[in-house]
Amino acid sequence: MQKWRATRRLLLNSYSSKSRFDHPRSNPISDHSTTISRSSSGFESWTSRILHYRHFATAMIQRNPSFSTLNSNDINHFKGILGDKNVIEDEDTLLSANTDWMRKYKGSSKLLLQPRTTQEVSEVLKYCNSRRLAVVPQGGNTGVVGGSVPVFDEVIINVGSMKQVISLDKVSGVLVCEAGCILENLVSFLDNQGFIMPLDLGAKGSCQIGGNVSTNAGGLRLVRYGSLHGTVLGIEAVLANGDVLDMLGTLRKDNTGYDLKHLFIGSEGSLGIVTKVSILTPPKLSSVNLAFLACKDYSSCQKLLFEAKRRLGEILSAFEFLDNESLNLALNHLEGVRNPLPPAMHNFYVLIETTGSDETYDKEKLEAFLLRSMEVGLISDGVIAQDINQASSFWRIREERIPSLHMGVPEALMKAGAIYKYDLSLPVETMYNLVEEMRTKLGNSAKVIGFGHLGDGNLHLNISTPQYDDAILAQIEPFVYEWTSKQRGSISAEHGLGLMKANKIFYSKSHETVQLMASIKKLMDPNGILNPYKVLPHSI
Amino acid sequence: MQKWRATRRLLLNSYSSKSRFDHPRSNPISDHSTTISRSSSGFESWTSRILHYRHFATAMIQRNPSFSTLNSNDINHFKGILGDKNVIEDEDTLLSANTDWMRKYKGSSKLLLQPRTTQEVSEVLKYCNSRRLAVVPQGGNTGVVGGSVPVFDEVIINVGSMKQVISLDKVSGVLVCEAGCILENLVSFLDNQGFIMPLDLGAKGSCQIGGNVSTNAGGLRLVRYGSLHGTVLGIEAVLANGDVLDMLGTLRKDNTGYDLKHLFIGSEGSLGIVTKVSILTPPKLSSVNLAFLACKDYSSCQKLLFEAKRRLGEILSAFEFLDNESLNLALNHLEGVRNPLPPAMHNFYVLIETTGSDETYDKEKLEAFLLRSMEVGLISDGVIAQDINQASSFWRIREERIPSLHMGVPEALMKAGAIYKYDLSLPVETMYNLVEEMRTKLGNSAKVIGFGHLGDGNLHLNISTPQYDDAILAQIEPFVYEWTSKQRGSISAEHGLGLMKANKIFYSKSHETVQLMASIKKLMDPNGILNPYKVLPHSI
Repeated sequence: MQKWRATRRLLLNSYSSKSRFDHPRSNPISDHSTTISRSSSGFESWTSRILHYRHFATAMIQRNPSFSTLNSNDINHFKGILGDKNVIEDEDTLLSANTDWMRKYKGSSKLLLQPRTTQEVSEVLKYCNSRRLAVVPQGGNTGVVGGSVPVFDEVIINVGSMKQVISLDKVSGVLVCEAGCILENLVSFLDNQGFIMPLDLGAKGSCQIGGNVSTNAGGLRLVRYGSLHGTVLGIEAVLANGDVLDMLGTLRKDNTGYDLKHLFIGSEGSLGIVTKVSILTPPKLSSVNLAFLACKDYSSCQKLLFEAKRRLGEILSAFEFLDNESLNLALNHLEGVRNPLPPAMHNFYVLIETTGSDETYDKEKLEAFLLRSMEVGLISDGVIAQDINQASSFWRIREERIPSLHMGVPEALMKAGAIYKYDLSLPVETMYNLVEEMRTKLGNSAKVIGFGHLGDGNLHLNISTPQYDDAILAQIEPFVYEWTSKQRGSISAEHGLGLMKANKIFYSKSHETVQLMASIKKLMDPNGILNPYKVLPHSI
Repeated sequence: MQKWRATRRLLLNSYSSKSRFDHPRSNPISDHSTTISRSSSGFESWTSRILHYRHFATAMIQRNPSFSTLNSNDINHFKGILGDKNVIEDEDTLLSANTDWMRKYKGSSKLLLQPRTTQEVSEVLKYCNSRRLAVVPQGGNTGVVGGSVPVFDEVIINVGSMKQVISLDKVSGVLVCEAGCILENLVSFLDNQGFIMPLDLGAKGSCQIGGNVSTNAGGLRLVRYGSLHGTVLGIEAVLANGDVLDMLGTLRKDNTGYDLKHLFIGSEGSLGIVTKVSILTPPKLSSVNLAFLACKDYSSCQKLLFEAKRRLGEILSAFEFLDNESLNLALNHLEGVRNPLPPAMHNFYVLIETTGSDETYDKEKLEAFLLRSMEVGLISDGVIAQDINQASSFWRIREERIPSLHMGVPEALMKAGAIYKYDLSLPVETMYNLVEEMRTKLGNSAKVIGFGHLGDGNLHLNISTPQYDDAILAQIEPFVYEWTSKQRGSISAEHGLGLMKANKIFYSKSHETVQLMASIKKLMDPNGILNPYKVLPHSI
């Protein structure tokens, strides 16, 4: 008990938002894919490797010949709808809009459209559909699977000009806004009103709520507030033919027919363009605590999660884990990262965050929980952050909360050489078996580490080698995908399929299900103009 | 402060489950519709009135002539699939399966099938589809909108024999089970493991999880744990053509393609038959408290809700309200119901329940909140239940937790004469305006009362008259639906549309949205054999 009492002090309420960077644009690493890092020791640069991959990816796909090519009549028509200045042909702007932030995917679109109203989106899509002009809906362009940039010459439709907050019901907490609202702006707006967004992402400084909804963004608060399928109460969307679907309900309970908004949540803009969103925002709570703990084995981590759900129950807001190899990597490769615990060999580490409405109760509850967990042997050692700086340094070790230049374990991995990254959802019980099996399989040829959101069942499997090696990749893939598939896991926990994983869908979804997806796509977008080549496998 | 300290004592953990009745079969009142109550003072009996309504309802619908009529070959074929004893032609059993529990709807099916496996459901549906035999999927048959009984001679498929718990992951709390599991059995099973179901219904002794999912049942825990769209992680469903869709994921995060399970949540069996369910179950928490409070006006109730969400935050589990008229009705008509507060004129009453993991903290937190709310004038008076009996008596006043013979305000209404009932979702801010406008409109000819789940934005508008009167009904409808529609409310908060409200869908959904629903229905069930005449308007 003395240990906790001696070290903990209440965290500042605002530490989490203050300690995060806004936007990951400057970081070229993919969170999902096999990518190669730049290294000072003569490895091939990431840019050239990525160009190689892009070549490979697009070489597999043919431009759909049924799509028309843009002509001057089209441009004039769009100018008639949107006005000259919202029809962008400027090369620099297009280069940026054609390219994802990792510079891994690059399209060749000649046109960026910036509608300001749902009606304009509708008129644009109606025209594109009649002319069979393919389009790519784009929000903040912060995705990591090539979903938000053109593959070929698709017209880019960016709803970033639609950025009005329409209403906030301060009793129910229901926020209604346009799709182009930047997540961080919504966070700021709500903060003044005593609410928070139910999701928080590293990319919040650029990503837009319409894109968040379209990709079913997971983010940092999922373990507490659940997915967008639960918190999004309504949307307005425009179909490929220009029809506007007004499903912008603000109700927690509504059982009048099929709840079609869910089709648009996570379909990556391939079924329609989301133009407005209604979302349930939780009240802002005043007390945040963070503990960094050591466990002797993975089984203890699981048991600790089980206990935390009961004993911390309603205040638990994060439960992250990393293995000893992950910690060592961070300690060895990241400047300024220190082990918060005295030197000792522990196999696993856990970060527990609580968020609640009462500082005193929450702290005491956390301390009592930790004391008890230590007494029964679930925790070998541990410390509670005393202030915002200590909390930031804890998060720095295992961090997607600081996803920009400083990425904790991911950043350390990048510095260590080539890296093969997989973001998987797996049953918590068997999750870590994959890491161990991978170690056995690869032996000394690679370093295999595991960390992730244990509370969400989300494993980040990372494999690093001194340099990129096709033979290593062949040992990893498709093994990792097959293993995940056998466990009924997901090969894309939260980032979607985009262009990158469209053809890998069958590892996580049955043929019958994918067939029905394709039928629904055909029904809702018969000409296939919406975000082509993405999400669904090219064979369908 | 002394007031709270003097009266409260910790509620027994189990009071809520102990105080509920299991099944509403014995109560003939509809929760949604205009129904007429039996009365000892010479009013028309409810049975004859309901028969009148049924006549009216079915008179509007023609049997779809494209459906085949059952013959002996069909029966033999089903016996070949299911075995003789699971092909039921017994008249008594069929009478029960043809009739809803309110005895308001009655079909004329000649056949009840009881498959035991997904494969059997698949073979049955494949055959029915090829023969164009219409079917009605049936679970516990506890619905209130005529969704779970045949309209004409549809074959009844009841999955009640599929009642195995398949797995429970004790770390993540993910339960996987067959669709025929009775909710209460799942509750008992989980209780032993330290979990609860994220939904709880009055009908839990009979209703089945497959039916809960198919109707997107709301229930008592929605304000805390959200809707089934958030908590159901996966389903297995059989389509009209017999194809089995295996979407039985157990993952909190999975962004691989369109999340089609949501199509089946709330589509009332019209798109497929749910055969297995995977659901996230919250940990069982040990501390429950209940307060009964008086407020001077509706604005205070709203502000109290606003404050409760912040100050009780993570432990708030129910926030119910009733107006003074509702309380008086309960006091005057229900035996043994007493006002927990000293006699005084208050306009509104609020019930607040908290559920948390720590008895001491939770009690103190509630007391501090109530004290502060009284100091700033949001509460005029109040009391905390001292024990399970007091809690039950509080709930008895405003209760859908005791939905059988004892229904609190609803029961009192029934005893008061004829009753017109509406279960609406509305924005909290404007919700009570409808009650007041209705009072102005009806004057002395009727008693208008309002109560409901303020925390969910769910209003129960009830209008009672000494006897049924077409002229009164004409003043209420379509006014109530139109008013709800103007507020973008829902005319069916949680019970679905079924047969009763299929034609009223446009009050809550746009034409474009309903048209897309119809297209999806046509895509997934081209012959329209699944639960015909329900959910979608007959004009489509």
